[in-house]
Amino acid sequence: MTRYPVSKLLAFVRLVLQQHGVPFDDAEVAARRMLDADVRGMSGHGVFRLPQYVARLQAGGYNVRPDIRATHETPVSALVEGDNGIGQVVLTRAADIAIKKAAEHGVAWVGVRGSNHAGAAGVYASMALEHDLIGVYLAVGSSNHLPPWGGTDPLLSTNPLAVAIPAGLEAPIVLDMATTVVSYGRIKIARDQGETLPEGWMVDRTGAPLTDPNRSGEGFLVPIGGYKGYGLGLVIGMLAGVLNGAAFGSRVVDFTQDHDTPTNTGQTLVMVRPDLFQPLEAFKVEMDERIRELRSSTPMPGQPPVRVPGDQMPRRQRAAAEHGLTLPPGTANRLRELAERLGITDHPFPAATSDGA
Amino acid sequence: MTRYPVSKLLAFVRLVLQQHGVPFDDAEVAARRMLDADVRGMSGHGVFRLPQYVARLQAGGYNVRPDIRATHETPVSALVEGDNGIGQVVLTRAADIAIKKAAEHGVAWVGVRGSNHAGAAGVYASMALEHDLIGVYLAVGSSNHLPPWGGTDPLLSTNPLAVAIPAGLEAPIVLDMATTVVSYGRIKIARDQGETLPEGWMVDRTGAPLTDPNRSGEGFLVPIGGYKGYGLGLVIGMLAGVLNGAAFGSRVVDFTQDHDTPTNTGQTLVMVRPDLFQPLEAFKVEMDERIRELRSSTPMPGQPPVRVPGDQMPRRQRAAAEHGLTLPPGTANRLRELAERLGITDHPFPAATSDGA
Repeated sequence: MTRYPVSKLLAFVRLVLQQHGVPFDDAEVAARRMLDADVRGMSGHGVFRLPQYVARLQAGGYNVRPDIRATHETPVSALVEGDNGIGQVVLTRAADIAIKKAAEHGVAWVGVRGSNHAGAAGVYASMALEHDLIGVYLAVGSSNHLPPWGGTDPLLSTNPLAVAIPAGLEAPIVLDMATTVVSYGRIKIARDQGETLPEGWMVDRTGAPLTDPNRSGEGFLVPIGGYKGYGLGLVIGMLAGVLNGAAFGSRVVDFTQDHDTPTNTGQTLVMVRPDLFQPLEAFKVEMDERIRELRSSTPMPGQPPVRVPGDQMPRRQRAAAEHGLTLPPGTANRLRELAERLGITDHPFPAATSDGA
Repeated sequence: MTRYPVSKLLAFVRLVLQQHGVPFDDAEVAARRMLDADVRGMSGHGVFRLPQYVARLQAGGYNVRPDIRATHETPVSALVEGDNGIGQVVLTRAADIAIKKAAEHGVAWVGVRGSNHAGAAGVYASMALEHDLIGVYLAVGSSNHLPPWGGTDPLLSTNPLAVAIPAGLEAPIVLDMATTVVSYGRIKIARDQGETLPEGWMVDRTGAPLTDPNRSGEGFLVPIGGYKGYGLGLVIGMLAGVLNGAAFGSRVVDFTQDHDTPTNTGQTLVMVRPDLFQPLEAFKVEMDERIRELRSSTPMPGQPPVRVPGDQMPRRQRAAAEHGLTLPPGTANRLRELAERLGITDHPFPAATSDGA
């Protein structure tokens, strides 16, 4: 499998964005956030998404020179107007504001409106970590794939949640989860690969299990824990959407189908300084102890050691830095096709292979 | 079914607590929070719990005259030391502090340690509502009933989450959910009633479904969405426990078995003022619109109208205020037995009925 130096992928993404009118600094930031996802193993939200972003850029669906600014501000809060900018750029600005406020005043609640799909939730929550902050990220998903519990009108998305908590010597905790059993992307992969869906991933309009991925358009994703995941996704949508004057419910624009209507996507970042409650070092020592207790606890018979959310990320990040990043063949092929379509000859992607998609 | 005036139940709970050394004011607060749960329909966390609290009071497991105080404080945060007081009393104090700080500075993050089981999560998140605040409540459950995902050591509890969001003319959104498919209390009810557990509620130590509630001691509760609910419960435990210097993991004292060891229970309240981000009235109008859209959306064939979390609460609260509260026969019988055991003759509970448990 080809290993790509992260710097080469970064330069490629940046160049593609620049070719579509995105200024260098913004293209650099967006490319970094996409690679941040890939090097952590969140490959569904990294460079994989570039062709989709390009389609939106070409349709004029982004403001490539947005005036991103805090329109309401207190020492501990801000509403960031994304001005229809690239989501990764808007959220990086919002995270920087949250970090500054939380570092200074202990707590920050930063809402975002006028944004777009920003990639991996965990990337933004994790921006808190190097500042010894806890980060929480909530987002309204960019495409409605499920109805309210017991209904049939698709008014809700996979509204994800991410929480990043610093530790000491152990890897920080990074939870990054959608509020549905699987993502819609996972359904598409099953369709591409001719898999049957396990019961519990999708239901049809009567609530019966839908297991044929070719019929996915007739059904809905299933929230985790049934009505509980419905409720959780709903409050995330209200805190990340309605509270910020961003889209929720029928106002959500399906960015997978509609490439030019501004999506008014909403996200929310909450950050807090652990040393508000106890000395930072004591907190880190206790985090390490509790993490070790979980990881060294008894696995189920025949199962691998117990894991905690995010524990694979540092290893993956190191491996990517040292040996480069692997990409699924389908992703590499799509990026090569994109490069060829855009007339970019200096790209790192090899000619199509037989295992490609 | 007997209907109990809320004031009579309140006076009974208060009297029982006073008989065990709890000062009048604290007994009143604890009784109110328990009835707040009952009148909202959260009957598993209201007066139903009184016999258990009494067992703990009698074993000396509570500090009935705690020095509850903010030990660390900033304009937007506090660590509340519960001093092993009754959970409902500690959390009411913490919520009052959070409300005051959020009303003044826009955001408040209040951690609690040295607390105890505090009843219904939704009650504390909802205390934000009458002040036009959004409330978030996280708690470490008081008894470990599940292992980390893929493990067999019970290091985690049902760690609940509640979120309350004001609306305008519509009922506010109140989400109150454990991070497990069902509570352990629900398993006990199934055992009492001779039910078989549906697959998905519990697993045995090999991960296979456990459907015989008489074998519940050999198995574990299942987190919602598998590893996702595990991760969510874990971060809730870290934010409500570790961050506050409260118990998490093996440090959690099982308050259903151990009546005298201080539990050092941790809870966290986060409150935020919606008008940090837009005018309050505009926010409420949009909340109403999105709630109505969900509630008026198409139900699945043969299903009742779509619901949103908390929409039944105002109706239940009004009904309880106007017509009194109904209690499950088992609960009423247990409270009558408690009254008799304590020599309280002036209680509202009728003699045992044949439908009692």
